Amino acid sequence: MTGPARRKGLTPRSEDFSAWYNEAVQQAELADYSPVRGSMVIRPWGYGIWENMQRALDDMFKATGHSNAYFPLLIPMSFIEREKEHVEGFKPELAVVTHAGGKDLEEPYVIRPTSETIIYSMYAKWVQSYRDLPILLNQWANVMRWELRTRLFLRTAEFLWQEGHTAHATEAEADEEALRMLGVYRSFMEDWMGMPPLTGAKSESEKFAGAVRSYACEALMQDGRALQAGTSHMLGQNFARQFGLTFQSEQGREEYAWNTSWGVSTRLVGGLVMTHGDDVGVVVPPRLAPTQVIVVPIGRSDEQWAAVREAAERVVGGLGDAGVRVEADTRRHLSPGAKFFEWERKGVPVRVEIGPRDVARGEVVVVRRVTAPGEERKEGVGEGRAVAGMPARLEALQGRLLEAARARREAGTHRGEVSSIEELGALLDGGAGFVHSGWSGDPAVEERVKEATRATIRVIPGEEFRSAAAPERCVGGGKARMEVVWARAY
Amino acid sequence: MTGPARRKGLTPRSEDFSAWYNEAVQQAELADYSPVRGSMVIRPWGYGIWENMQRALDDMFKATGHSNAYFPLLIPMSFIEREKEHVEGFKPELAVVTHAGGKDLEEPYVIRPTSETIIYSMYAKWVQSYRDLPILLNQWANVMRWELRTRLFLRTAEFLWQEGHTAHATEAEADEEALRMLGVYRSFMEDWMGMPPLTGAKSESEKFAGAVRSYACEALMQDGRALQAGTSHMLGQNFARQFGLTFQSEQGREEYAWNTSWGVSTRLVGGLVMTHGDDVGVVVPPRLAPTQVIVVPIGRSDEQWAAVREAAERVVGGLGDAGVRVEADTRRHLSPGAKFFEWERKGVPVRVEIGPRDVARGEVVVVRRVTAPGEERKEGVGEGRAVAGMPARLEALQGRLLEAARARREAGTHRGEVSSIEELGALLDGGAGFVHSGWSGDPAVEERVKEATRATIRVIPGEEFRSAAAPERCVGGGKARMEVVWARAY
Repeated sequence: MTGPARRKGLTPRSEDFSAWYNEAVQQAELADYSPVRGSMVIRPWGYGIWENMQRALDDMFKATGHSNAYFPLLIPMSFIEREKEHVEGFKPELAVVTHAGGKDLEEPYVIRPTSETIIYSMYAKWVQSYRDLPILLNQWANVMRWELRTRLFLRTAEFLWQEGHTAHATEAEADEEALRMLGVYRSFMEDWMGMPPLTGAKSESEKFAGAVRSYACEALMQDGRALQAGTSHMLGQNFARQFGLTFQSEQGREEYAWNTSWGVSTRLVGGLVMTHGDDVGVVVPPRLAPTQVIVVPIGRSDEQWAAVREAAERVVGGLGDAGVRVEADTRRHLSPGAKFFEWERKGVPVRVEIGPRDVARGEVVVVRRVTAPGEERKEGVGEGRAVAGMPARLEALQGRLLEAARARREAGTHRGEVSSIEELGALLDGGAGFVHSGWSGDPAVEERVKEATRATIRVIPGEEFRSAAAPERCVGGGKARMEVVWARAY
Repeated sequence: MTGPARRKGLTPRSEDFSAWYNEAVQQAELADYSPVRGSMVIRPWGYGIWENMQRALDDMFKATGHSNAYFPLLIPMSFIEREKEHVEGFKPELAVVTHAGGKDLEEPYVIRPTSETIIYSMYAKWVQSYRDLPILLNQWANVMRWELRTRLFLRTAEFLWQEGHTAHATEAEADEEALRMLGVYRSFMEDWMGMPPLTGAKSESEKFAGAVRSYACEALMQDGRALQAGTSHMLGQNFARQFGLTFQSEQGREEYAWNTSWGVSTRLVGGLVMTHGDDVGVVVPPRLAPTQVIVVPIGRSDEQWAAVREAAERVVGGLGDAGVRVEADTRRHLSPGAKFFEWERKGVPVRVEIGPRDVARGEVVVVRRVTAPGEERKEGVGEGRAVAGMPARLEALQGRLLEAARARREAGTHRGEVSSIEELGALLDGGAGFVHSGWSGDPAVEERVKEATRATIRVIPGEEFRSAAAPERCVGGGKARMEVVWARAY
């Protein structure tokens, strides 16, 4: 996979964002298509980003009191069918195992599209008294939803995710948990991904199949479309009733438990690409980059090569000691230009070039993958100072990516009064990403907006995202009962 | 799940090892049965052990140059069928998806029983030249083999594992890789699990379906049966030929690549239980224990409780700072005895009890889960000394578990000349676990031994496990061509 064929540039984002995305993902070797319909292969660079996401999220889950566990991949068909809304939501996308161990099965199993049913059936077995609550578990797993149109990372038949499943004694506690995890997701997306989401509640028509209330993180991609990047659900007692998840309360009464579930998936990797990528390729925020700094020694003769390799090893050692994830690219059959091209496309935050003249001067050349306006892309720095300053340089880059994404989101958000569906459509066509408006709460208005503009209600925004002046009129006419945010979404 | 019902003792190992195992696993809350045939639920305590195993192994894989990636769960039926021995080995155990997204599939998919076929089909796409080799990837995943008789952790329809898959330019390099990973497994089992395995090659009849050579780690359980705990395979060019995995060599020739695959699974958790457990319950080696020290404050009045809780918090803080995984059990509705019982059953290595009189003396009581002969189980220690000495105490316990397991393995190994199949059977009936003997290499002898004694060749032992004097006679009569180790196995 080396050589000139790979040096072809990407389709520019402005020309065809969707083509750019597919090329960027594949050429950065984040993922590849597989021979299995709708399933992808996550390659080491993409999986490395996912591993870093997992580690950060897992630490946050544990810090909020959760433990990991693992439940079966297969779910009896009868379990999925028990919660009425749940089965309606998921049935069209199920993959079904009808045959196993050389025999037809008496009852078919489905490959989990999500695990509420199997998990709450186990909780029902484990919980007797209020003292056994809350149960705060999370599972890292693969799930399967047979989608018709798939896109690498964004929508695949199989994907990797985590699903948190909790059980509580009261509704208030469950709602608090659902909101807490929404907050964890938001912090993660901001602090680690540099992808600041809008958060809030879903409308009735957009909520999870089987939930009482759904909350979501919605991020704005560079093409102005929203990406649902994480969801957290207060499931009420819906599943508890179907699976007999009861407990004896402190007062000695038999009561149904209250559940929540919440999840994020490998879709986040796609969100990261569409948030930070440029026409050169992917840009990975330093905190998630499997390799934060790539060191490229440059020398022709064997003598030069020995000198620059030695310097490169010293820099790698120094950066490693400083806690930086660093690698040296010592392949001799590739030109420096080919290496630069490859690592820029992959989105490594910083490159350090070391040539014979740099060695003679005790310097290295530090090259940033992304620059702020007016900032130099390349700079010659004394070797020691380059090493010592690297953690701060990486943190600064992390902050800059978040700022830029936040500025893009603000620039793409329309907050004034929107008086009609036509105006909403015109705003979206004119480049607005998130459009705030008033809404009566009538699902028919949602439906009309969707037909006319392809936009849906992404969230009923949380307090911190509401407009200073609450909108007074519903976008569909009449009085508004609440503020909502519309967008065309992935 | 609290209260007197849980205080029932386990069936003693000497009475019924198999019953003891099932009870120990469930009552320690390592795992539970699920409503899905042959699939289990891994509960937080069991999953926490698996997470620690994963982390240690993953670090070792990365230190030997491997990266992680992820390949599809589903494999087209035609892929599985391509390698003749492979499909013969796995076909009877396949779970088959025939229906998805509301339609019957044109070609059924199988849920991966192992991923050679799908992975090497991708390598074929990625590899052009010798410069693209070696490929050194690992995948953490779930797999499915529809087993008739299942046992928690030891044999389940679905299990979690890692599967390494590599591609090399030469046979020598592939064989070196297969042996390197066998060594990684052996080190992991010794250093982390305290479960010293015997290593060596499998006989033809016992090797992996599709491999040229299989290597294995075989550990001796307390009941004298062997557990195959990890395997590493040199696959030759078998899969490369079926999937067109070729490369242009340095000399410009088109050649097939050489593959290896290697894996360990959640079965290791079962091996850990059967290596260290006692009649009280599970014993978890400190390096793998999710909680290494449980602190139990003991006080009746609120005043006493405040004092012991304060001391407990101090100890937890101190131990946490020292890098010890520690937790305080502050449940007030449970008696100290009930707590001791629960944590001993789970196998937490060390308990620290703090009562009012201890607080007055500035002491705590340190209680070991396992003691060496002549060692006190409980000892009063100054609080500061207890905290400062804990890492060393845990390491000593880790070492002691390995020593004990090694001594048991040696005591259970018979190395003298074995002159007949009858003698081999008598040795096994008399309590021998591993029996070394000579073997002619004739599969008919293997078959006869199996029928007469239920033992199989576990390995053709590696150099370090061979007897000082090579056996001269085959156990089935005639001249020996090699030394082998027999055992009854899980």
